[in-house]
Parts: sequence; structure tokens; C-alpha cells
Amino acid sequence: MSKAHFGLIGLGVMGENLVLNAERNGFSSVVFNRTYSKTEEFLKGRGIGKKIDGAKTVKEFVEKLERPRRILMMVKAGSATDAVIDNISEYLEEGDLLIDGGNSQFKDTERRVKQLESKSFGYIGMGVSGGSKGALEGPSMMPGGTKSSYDAIENLLTKMAAKVEDGPCVAYVGPGGSGHFVKTVHNGIEYGIEQILAEAYDLMKRVSKMNCSEISDVFGNWNQTEELSSYLVEITEICLKNKDDFSDEFTVEKILDKAGQKGTGLWTVISALELGVSVPTIYASLNARVMSSLKDQRKEMENNLPTGDINKFDLGNLNNGMKPLFDSVVLSTIASYAQGMDILREASNVYNYDLDMQSIAQIWKGGCIIRSKLLKRIQDAYAKESNLKNIIFDDWFNKQISKKIDNLSFVVSSANKANIPTPCLSSTLDYLNSYRTSRLPQNLVQAMRDCFGSHTYERIDKEGSFHTEWLK
Amino acid sequence: MSKAHFGLIGLGVMGENLVLNAERNGFSSVVFNRTYSKTEEFLKGRGIGKKIDGAKTVKEFVEKLERPRRILMMVKAGSATDAVIDNISEYLEEGDLLIDGGNSQFKDTERRVKQLESKSFGYIGMGVSGGSKGALEGPSMMPGGTKSSYDAIENLLTKMAAKVEDGPCVAYVGPGGSGHFVKTVHNGIEYGIEQILAEAYDLMKRVSKMNCSEISDVFGNWNQTEELSSYLVEITEICLKNKDDFSDEFTVEKILDKAGQKGTGLWTVISALELGVSVPTIYASLNARVMSSLKDQRKEMENNLPTGDINKFDLGNLNNGMKPLFDSVVLSTIASYAQGMDILREASNVYNYDLDMQSIAQIWKGGCIIRSKLLKRIQDAYAKESNLKNIIFDDWFNKQISKKIDNLSFVVSSANKANIPTPCLSSTLDYLNSYRTSRLPQNLVQAMRDCFGSHTYERIDKEGSFHTEWLK
Repeated sequence: MSKAHFGLIGLGVMGENLVLNAERNGFSSVVFNRTYSKTEEFLKGRGIGKKIDGAKTVKEFVEKLERPRRILMMVKAGSATDAVIDNISEYLEEGDLLIDGGNSQFKDTERRVKQLESKSFGYIGMGVSGGSKGALEGPSMMPGGTKSSYDAIENLLTKMAAKVEDGPCVAYVGPGGSGHFVKTVHNGIEYGIEQILAEAYDLMKRVSKMNCSEISDVFGNWNQTEELSSYLVEITEICLKNKDDFSDEFTVEKILDKAGQKGTGLWTVISALELGVSVPTIYASLNARVMSSLKDQRKEMENNLPTGDINKFDLGNLNNGMKPLFDSVVLSTIASYAQGMDILREASNVYNYDLDMQSIAQIWKGGCIIRSKLLKRIQDAYAKESNLKNIIFDDWFNKQISKKIDNLSFVVSSANKANIPTPCLSSTLDYLNSYRTSRLPQNLVQAMRDCFGSHTYERIDKEGSFHTEWLK
Repeated sequence: MSKAHFGLIGLGVMGENLVLNAERNGFSSVVFNRTYSKTEEFLKGRGIGKKIDGAKTVKEFVEKLERPRRILMMVKAGSATDAVIDNISEYLEEGDLLIDGGNSQFKDTERRVKQLESKSFGYIGMGVSGGSKGALEGPSMMPGGTKSSYDAIENLLTKMAAKVEDGPCVAYVGPGGSGHFVKTVHNGIEYGIEQILAEAYDLMKRVSKMNCSEISDVFGNWNQTEELSSYLVEITEICLKNKDDFSDEFTVEKILDKAGQKGTGLWTVISALELGVSVPTIYASLNARVMSSLKDQRKEMENNLPTGDINKFDLGNLNNGMKPLFDSVVLSTIASYAQGMDILREASNVYNYDLDMQSIAQIWKGGCIIRSKLLKRIQDAYAKESNLKNIIFDDWFNKQISKKIDNLSFVVSSANKANIPTPCLSSTLDYLNSYRTSRLPQNLVQAMRDCFGSHTYERIDKEGSFHTEWLK
């Protein structure tokens, strides 16, 4: 029997679907799972009649692969990944290649690339986005590591990836942990957009008293616009329409308002902090999940504090696409992308990733959770100016902000008066307001710091460091 | 010649002042500095005629100390501290004690406690706050490590510390790196309050067109109130009054609006993220410094985007203490403390620090940068209920929020309409609004996540995990 083109470890839903995707594209495979019963079940079920073989042991798995071996790991991030690497390493030979397709911390990937390459193996840390459906039909993939390792799997990945009008949604990202870093930031942007859409839903529900079906129609309408056409808006329309299995109500209204926030969203904000990048919209989305988890405290506080009446204000109507709210959602979504790209730009410098921002926008244009028409605009912006400071300096984005910021300001200030929290929308407004203010009040902070700690300060009219004896 | 009671390494301004403070309280010392000329200068200058001796070498320094030795290091955090520890360790004997009074990362302190104790030395990581003046006259000190090590310096620290009506501003904090952790959070709260006061100044200047002297009077007035009487408000009044040496203007207006944000403020937010604690006000203060550093980008963006007119709104006047603004500043300051205490509460559980929250409030009541009358209220709150979830659940704080939140809402929404960024005030409002909302919109986020990733969700009406086939 001829040896298989590539191997997969870990038959979770992502792993299964990626193997089926590869097989459809002409690549034979061997699969291995910690518990063999899962492998058997898959081979007799979804894998039946396909060029997919199974292995009972790691040794058998490795022996069934053509050399140099290409092995995709789809296992849990963290110690489980290290355990698989340790286990399989004893059977590998020079030039064999491991690909980690899980959601690994990029610093772990940096470490593993060094560790494996010191043994003459190849190692690729690859972010995969698109959920289970994307994995099967064509995901967006962000592979990072040594370029020669990438070259050995380029053909496979290119065929498996989602395609958009100008090519596949995969490309070599950069060295070390850069692939997982880019995936992490992708997820941070995703957190932002999800929370922005949730805030929009909340405002339509609580201020305009619309039901899920009416709100769903608004999202459907938004998904037809250049600014908001995107996967997340599309599924929001779908989710809101869904009727509950256990009652007459909409399913969404029966779901508990608690969302978790461990992993990639968290890492995105920590990386931004470490790199000194401003990401208030993304932070707000993460923190909104933290606040959501305090359900019992919130119930108690709702009774302790006045909640007041909800002041009505005009969010628009279906005919005008809820114009003020639409504008607010567009700018907040732009801010999420802008802040994410800003992290990548800075990481590219500080970690020497040498990222091609245009290429990353291309990878994200299809297959992944944050795919949207805006990414075409982002790609164009970097095509025009590869060293763009921030996408909000690009003409198209700048004009969007100019046209829409008054509505954002109106919606946020009205929500504030109505006692409805809109952390992502508010943070976006403060972000943009700070950006368009050449003189901010940190001069006073510097005065205080010089006063109590002799930290010195700079001046607006002279070069150098200055100190004042404030307390004399 | 009799041996000295304790030794100090590092004659920066903090080190010098701490030695002079100890000497005034009856403790003899030996000082050592990397460059001996600095030591000589100090001994012939501020140290003249005092029970302060100098040493040229580490060996001589160690030999001049009574046993068990007590050695306070006031050196730069990071590798400089490790270098000093390595250097001095060869001369130490069993039972000798090193105290790190710098702004070390608490994880470094955890490591050093283990490292030094494995050699039978004692190690205390101690946060010191109060600036140079506090160091001389009585700082607030947060010592952490093994209790027996603390006992060996309790007498010294108690005499050196700031005193308030009910005792000294020092106490044993807890094991390991807890002392530096508490100091880190102190600084995070400090970042918050500094930014809140800066936003208040900005609003008075830009909306009410007040000059520095008038604004200073408002802060002077606020410093007489129970809610805002504090060191930072006091020095803000002083700083704003200061006239420039180089012009006829107020010094503050000549200071560049760029503030740095490395170190403890950053660590506070990262720790909060790692612990899953909501700290939007503190994050906003850190991020405001990041935005301040983008001075060139802001100048450019001010020209690119419409800045609009500043809509006037009524912030009050000197007679009513700028009531709406005052209320906003009070609630935002409360939020900074609440979020900081919340980090400590969670760290106490997760890191097994077993912190006494009441005692920490006591340490902070005098000597340190965030000392304020509010800390007495915080102490009382924990005296009533040591397991308080969050200080905003305490009656006194809860009433403050009830009484003042409408004004916070008014000020934030008006600032939003006026295009003036108020990130800390806005974040506080969203924090409190989220807290008083039992039903937040994360149910929609959970629906989306279940839709694209089969993450499952909980329901409001049934136990268990649920999944919906949204796309069918």
C-alpha cells in the first residue's frame, strides 16, 4: 500500500473536517486519535470510502506517511500539545514536519519552533479560523514558522483554503510564532465585533422595543451594505430569527447572558498592553464578557441601585437601516480592525515578524469568522501605503469616520443618558475623540508625577527634561 | 566600633531619604552604592553628623552590620536587583535578611523569595509609596514574604512608616510576592485617579473656559470634602497654581501632554486580565497614556477629522463645587479603588495571599500617593464585612452611587456630544451601568459562538449545556 500524503492527529470536529477537506482536494491521509474507538468510528462513518487510513499507534501512524512526513496536530492548546509533540518526536526523522493547527499561545509556538528545529524537524504554528463549517469547506489559515517548512505544505494548504475572487485565504505569515500571533489578534477583533453587534441588538431591543425578528431584519439589511457585509452580521441575522425548541419565544432570548473570555481574546489584550498599543474597543469587548460572568452580582446590584427609566431616543427605523446605530456599528467595527492591525504592525517591528499587512487582510477575506467586505478596503489601504500608521489614516476609512462620528456620538451619549451600557461603542468614541485631539490633558498627569516623584517632564516650547519645585 | 542596625544599598533619592528617616527614628545604618563617590558625597552632605556609616565594598558593607543582618535594597527593578542579590549573597550568613524596596514585578519577587530562602536567607519584597518626601517623613510600606522575616524588621518599619490616627501605615501583607503585588495595584489605582483628575481639568478648561487658577480653586474646594480629600487632589491644586519660570503662563500649560505607561500600571491591568477581574477605569487610565504618546498622530488626525464646536454644558460653578463634575469624579475615583480592591480580593484567593483587606486600606491611609479619606470608608466597609464582593456593595458606597450616578451620566453624555474624550469617566459609567443591569446582551454572543463553533450555551430556564443547529 502506498504511503499517505499527510497525517492528522486529533479527531475533534475541526480535525475530522480538515481531513475530509484535504481528501476532497486529492490528498490521502492517515489519522490518529488518542482513543482508537474514535478513529474507527470516523473511518466507518464520515471517512468511509475515502483515501483516509487509520493508525492504532503513533509508530504505525508515522510509518504510514510518505517522507518527509507532514503531520497536522489538531489537539488542545497547552500541555496536551506538548505531550503529543514529545510522544511523536521519537519516531520522526530529519526533515519531517509538524504543524500545530490549534489555538496555541504564540510564545509556546516560538519555543516549540526552536525546540523542534534543533532536532532537524520542521515546525509550523498555524492559526485556523472558520469554525467547523470553514474547516470542511475551506478555512482561513495563518501558518508561521520557517519558510522552507511552509513551502513543503503550500500546495496542500492552498488547495484546502477558502478562495476569494483574487486567490486563496492562506499565505506564509512569518517566522516563529507569528502564525498563531496573527490568529490571536484575529480572535481579538472577533471579540470586538461580536460585542458591538450585541450592543446594537441590546439598544434596538431596549430603546426601540423591537423583537428578535425585527432586529434580525435590520442585521439582514446591514449585511447588504458595503460597510457591514460580513459573516458575523450574517449569522447574527440567522441566530436572531431562530425559534426556541422549548417555548414559543426566540431562542436567543432563552440563552443565559454569560460569555467566557479565556484564551485568545485575553492574549490579544495582554499583547497589546505589552506592545503599548491602544486597543480600547477590544478591551471593552473582553471586559464585557467579564461583566457578563458576574450575573449574581448584577442581579443584586440591579435591586440596590436606581435603574431609572429608559429614555427613548431615535435609533432610526428599518427603512433608513437604523442609520444612527448603523453608523455607530460601522465605526466601532472599523475601530476593532484598526486596533487589531495596529497590534500586528507593532508586533511586526518588535518581534521581527516582518508581516505583510496586505497579505494578512487577504487571508482574512474569506473562510474566517471576521471575513467581511471591509477587509477588501483594509487590503487596498495597505496596497496604497504598506507602512500605514493606522488604517484610520487611510482616505476611505478617514471619510467614513468624518461622515459617521456625529451619529456615534449621538448614540453613545443617548445610551449613556438611558443607563444602557455600551462599552464597545463608548470606547470607540473615546478612542476617536482622543485621536482627533492634538492637546490631551496628560500635561497635568506629568505635573503630578513630577511633583510627588521628581519624574521630570518635557515642555511644548523647549527641548529637554524639566523639573519644578512644586511644593516650595 | 559597634555594628550598625541595618544596611542600605542604592543611594537614589528614595534610598537616601529612607536612611535619614530610619536614623531620625534611632536606627544606625551603613550605606553602600555602586559608585563610592556618591556614598562619600552623601556622608559629607545630608548624612553628616548622623549615625550613618559608609562602605567601599560589599564585603566591608556586610561586615559592618549586626547579625542577623537587615539589608534594604533600593535599586532599579529587574536585572539590577538580581545582580545586587547575586553579588551580596556570597557574603551573607544563615538568617540574614534582604529587603527589596524597589518596584519589582511580583512574579520576580516570588522567584527571589524561593531562591533566597533555599539558601537559608530571609527575603522580603516591599512596596514603598510616598515619593521622596514620603520616604523621608514617613512612607506607606507593603512588606510581603515569610512572616518570621517580617518580624525581624517590624520594629524598624513601624517607626519609619507614616502614622495616621489609628496606627502606622505598614503591616505584614502576606507571603511570597504579595507585598509587591499590593504595591502594583496601588499604582494601578493611582493611574486611575490621576487620569480622572486630568479629565476633570480638561472639561473645566475646554467646556467652562476656566483658567488654571480657577480650576485650582475647584480642586482646593474638593480637597475639603469627605469624598475627595486626598493627596492627589491636594497636589493637583498646587500644581495648577504654579506660574512658569519661562513665561507669564501657568506651568501646567507649558508641559507636553505625553505620559509614559510602563511598569506597575501595566502590570496591574495584565494581572487583572489574568485573574478575570473587571478594571475598565484603570485600563482606560493606562490607555489614555498610550493615546497621549501618539502626539504626532493626534496632530495629524485633528486636521483630518472634523473636530466640531465644543457644545457648552453646565458643569456647575465654584459656589456649588462644580457639582455635576464633582459627582463624576467621586464615582470614578470610587470605581478605581473598587476595581483595585477587586484585583486584590481575587489575587488573595488565586495566589493564596490571604490578604487582610482592612489592613491594606489601613496601610494606604497615610504616606502613600493614593491616601485619601475614602480609604477610611473602605476600611470600614471591610471591617463590617471582610468578604465583601466589591466595595460598591457596601452601604455607604452604594448610596454614593445612587446619589451621584445621574450626574456622571449627564457629564459623560455631554462630553461625548462635545467631542471631548473622557475615557475614565465613560468607562466608569459603563462599569456601573453594566453592574446594575441583570440582563446583558451576551446571550447573543453565546448564540453566535454556538453557531460558528458549536461552543454550546446555557439557558435561563433550564440546567445544562445546549446546542442549536442554527444554520439548518
